[in-house]
Amino acid sequence: MNDVQNQKDTRNIDIQKVGVKDVEFPLSIERKNNKNLTVYAKAKMSVSLPKEYKGTHMSRFIEVLEEERKEGHIGFDTKDFLLRIKNKLNSTSAYAKFDFKFFIEKEAPKSNLKSLMCYDCYFEGILDDNNDYKFYLGAKIPVTTLCPCSKEISNYGAHNQRALVKVKISYNENEHIWLEDLIKTVESSGSSELFSLLKREDEKAVTERAYENPKFVEDVLRDVVLKLQNNQKITSFEVEIEAMESIHNHNAWACQKFSR
Amino acid sequence: MNDVQNQKDTRNIDIQKVGVKDVEFPLSIERKNNKNLTVYAKAKMSVSLPKEYKGTHMSRFIEVLEEERKEGHIGFDTKDFLLRIKNKLNSTSAYAKFDFKFFIEKEAPKSNLKSLMCYDCYFEGILDDNNDYKFYLGAKIPVTTLCPCSKEISNYGAHNQRALVKVKISYNENEHIWLEDLIKTVESSGSSELFSLLKREDEKAVTERAYENPKFVEDVLRDVVLKLQNNQKITSFEVEIEAMESIHNHNAWACQKFSR
Amino acid sequence: MNDVQNQKDTRNIDIQKVGVKDVEFPLSIERKNNKNLTVYAKAKMSVSLPKEYKGTHMSRFIEVLEEERKEGHIGFDTKDFLLRIKNKLNSTSAYAKFDFKFFIEKEAPKSNLKSLMCYDCYFEGILDDNNDYKFYLGAKIPVTTLCPCSKEISNYGAHNQRALVKVKISYNENEHIWLEDLIKTVESSGSSELFSLLKREDEKAVTERAYENPKFVEDVLRDVVLKLQNNQKITSFEVEIEAMESIHNHNAWACQKFSR
Amino acid sequence: MNDVQNQKDTRNIDIQKVGVKDVEFPLSIERKNNKNLTVYAKAKMSVSLPKEYKGTHMSRFIEVLEEERKEGHIGFDTKDFLLRIKNKLNSTSAYAKFDFKFFIEKEAPKSNLKSLMCYDCYFEGILDDNNDYKFYLGAKIPVTTLCPCSKEISNYGAHNQRALVKVKISYNENEHIWLEDLIKTVESSGSSELFSLLKREDEKAVTERAYENPKFVEDVLRDVVLKLQNNQKITSFEVEIEAMESIHNHNAWACQKFSR
Repeated sequence: MNDVQNQKDTRNIDIQKVGVKDVEFPLSIERKNNKNLTVYAKAKMSVSLPKEYKGTHMSRFIEVLEEERKEGHIGFDTKDFLLRIKNKLNSTSAYAKFDFKFFIEKEAPKSNLKSLMCYDCYFEGILDDNNDYKFYLGAKIPVTTLCPCSKEISNYGAHNQRALVKVKISYNENEHIWLEDLIKTVESSGSSELFSLLKREDEKAVTERAYENPKFVEDVLRDVVLKLQNNQKITSFEVEIEAMESIHNHNAWACQKFSR
Repeated sequence: MNDVQNQKDTRNIDIQKVGVKDVEFPLSIERKNNKNLTVYAKAKMSVSLPKEYKGTHMSRFIEVLEEERKEGHIGFDTKDFLLRIKNKLNSTSAYAKFDFKFFIEKEAPKSNLKSLMCYDCYFEGILDDNNDYKFYLGAKIPVTTLCPCSKEISNYGAHNQRALVKVKISYNENEHIWLEDLIKTVESSGSSELFSLLKREDEKAVTERAYENPKFVEDVLRDVVLKLQNNQKITSFEVEIEAMESIHNHNAWACQKFSR
Repeated sequence: MNDVQNQKDTRNIDIQKVGVKDVEFPLSIERKNNKNLTVYAKAKMSVSLPKEYKGTHMSRFIEVLEEERKEGHIGFDTKDFLLRIKNKLNSTSAYAKFDFKFFIEKEAPKSNLKSLMCYDCYFEGILDDNNDYKFYLGAKIPVTTLCPCSKEISNYGAHNQRALVKVKISYNENEHIWLEDLIKTVESSGSSELFSLLKREDEKAVTERAYENPKFVEDVLRDVVLKLQNNQKITSFEVEIEAMESIHNHNAWACQKFSR
Repeated sequence: MNDVQNQKDTRNIDIQKVGVKDVEFPLSIERKNNKNLTVYAKAKMSVSLPKEYKGTHMSRFIEVLEEERKEGHIGFDTKDFLLRIKNKLNSTSAYAKFDFKFFIEKEAPKSNLKSLMCYDCYFEGILDDNNDYKFYLGAKIPVTTLCPCSKEISNYGAHNQRALVKVKISYNENEHIWLEDLIKTVESSGSSELFSLLKREDEKAVTERAYENPKFVEDVLRDVVLKLQNNQKITSFEVEIEAMESIHNHNAWACQKFSR
């Protein structure tokens, strides 16, 4: 059968990224406690396409994924995955982003009851024309923010709300940063952190902690930025925070980029 | 050209609803202040299809909408629209739902500054085989809820959050209920209501009001239910509330249906 | 500490459903091939609340879930889960819906290469005041639809698109229907079915199959309805189909409810 | 009352962007035909915050928006808006993005019937520390793509689908590019374009046109890139295309950035 993708193209345009998006699969992920967990993942994968070729071979992305499937789930190292993509698709560069649902067991502050929290996370990697590799680790972490202005001016109470912090960090290949640690860094920067299971004594503790610890989105942003700057392993990062204000129907929002 | 839709079908199945979904258009809507507003709307429209016919004529839904377009926007009465659909598509019954973005001007409680709040609303109508007409008015209204338990057990503060109340009501054809009034009914049932524009004195007022007025989702639900039950114009309703708990990553949730 | 939830309420309103929503957890699910898979799940859980009580005890829903956690994931039988909820929360009725991401291995039609497809599915259960139990199985299944009208009137080609079929079925407690079988029933009702991995010979096969097998959303709906009606185990069902028309920016849509 | 936002901050971090997000309002927008249309808009607005200050004054963003409200809708020039933000918030730089729903009347190819198509569009502007202004115009435009490989290898038919093209362009301040023209540029680059209203003769025309004009996402991307490169007014652009493959449950995807 004719290979239309291999036909010659005359438009003289090298394509930077072409591939597939929203490929869903069960990803086996290594955790800090050494026990792998199978999580739901969604992949975006691409290669560069030289100007001479009409199209890439999209089915090969799925084939590389499927080669790693064992016992119902798929596990791999991102850099190794990109190398295999480059080989299989004969491309000079490769890119992939794997969004996934990650779970961490947390302990309630007083009752010490354990429950699971879920976080939207991702691995993102680029392997360029010189085989230089860049890796990004990303996560969305919910925290509580309690408004310092509202606390200051009100006779009692203070508006507070759930806020979502998005972080994306990169670090050198010979280093490793656990998602669990990145998430803890952010959770410790809110007015309080969130839990799935809180008994009455725990609810009292997190309520009072938030009230003692009022923070604007500016404060959370600055505290996360300081901690990430102080971690010398981290070579660049982006932080974004969005608070679902309980007194407004819009969100307070702040963001920052940093690179050494 | 052959009319495939008009071909005979032999599967012996009357289809209850077939039509189009996610048709976007600029809807001209009448407001209580007598000034029409053009809003963004999304339509779902269907007819019943007798077992004898293979398919309906989908383009006619768009034609009926387009017949009402004047000066860039489209305005109509829901019942009249359904009658026109029935005629144009030769069907025995017709159904439509128009979701739209509605704006109301609100005044901040102390500064009296005015600003706009946006609400997701809808009109929904059914005209059945006997030309009996049923109309539903729906809206999603954000409010603040402040947790009575958290307030009671904590030395200071209380967790609070944005909560979304969904209401759907039906009333008799000879009655009229304004969206503005339905929204006010719900907004007055939260711990506090939301505003787009609040200056410092307003923020103090809404913070203190919420603290003085703690409510579980159960409380908001019951208060809305009581008010709707007491409105004799309303023949049936559904209420649903979902609070984006500031101390959890899941939501508190309650719902209720009622019919006279 | 004061139990605010247990305080007396005087509004005289029994609440039909109150609980939690969007609780995320790793669900262990039994498959037809006997190998359990851990999948990402999102729970909505509620109880009824008698008029005498101010509030329910929301943390207990999470506690019941957590009691079932072993080796990182949570597994249970829906009816048994509802019984435990009723007991733990002292309620007369209980309801739960578990949405989850389900994977099935499919074989490409010609190359026979295997790959995974992901489906949004759910279990839904109600245990009422008399301990009568009702169970629903739901799934969203993508198929290809190729327009019979477009094929008939055009000299060549025919517009086709991805369409999403939503099914929800209920069956008696002493019966069992596998998700794998429900999904197959729907996939065999489109113009063609979808795959994650198709090589060139497979693409030719699915393209030609769709062209030989043109279907309106009406046709897919009727074919699914016929098959479900003929399965005597099924006591009631709902089917909805939405096709993301490749020539329109809106969707063709149809739905049907059935009960024996 | 104490102005907490004006308190001194000691963390030594200049914040790049802080403001509000998801502010909804009715935007009056100028069209090529000289008739303004009121559309639904959602704003993200921010300023930079020097390290000395604890917080920004979020309510002022809403105040600047509200100053422009007349007869129920809000209209402004993006650069002028940013200047006003800078003044009102005493900031050195300002940023805003206004997402909105835009409507264009299109004519069916044969019947010449007119109907409205809706497009997600945005204006984005940055006014930096030197009052240098940068403006971006963005739009999401759906087109049909028909697979060249599927057509080539199949005896009849070819899979096709709705694809979404996202473009973002910037141009010099003394130039102007109409959204209507940008959208046309993209729509003319698909296998066929989409319409809201097509009668049978139109459906034949678009079906045949797509079959005569097969395109991979790579082809659509290259054709859009060529046209934008050739428009000397445009100083930089980004193009992204995502096709909802009718034979897969994932999407084909490609993207490109360009700057003169």
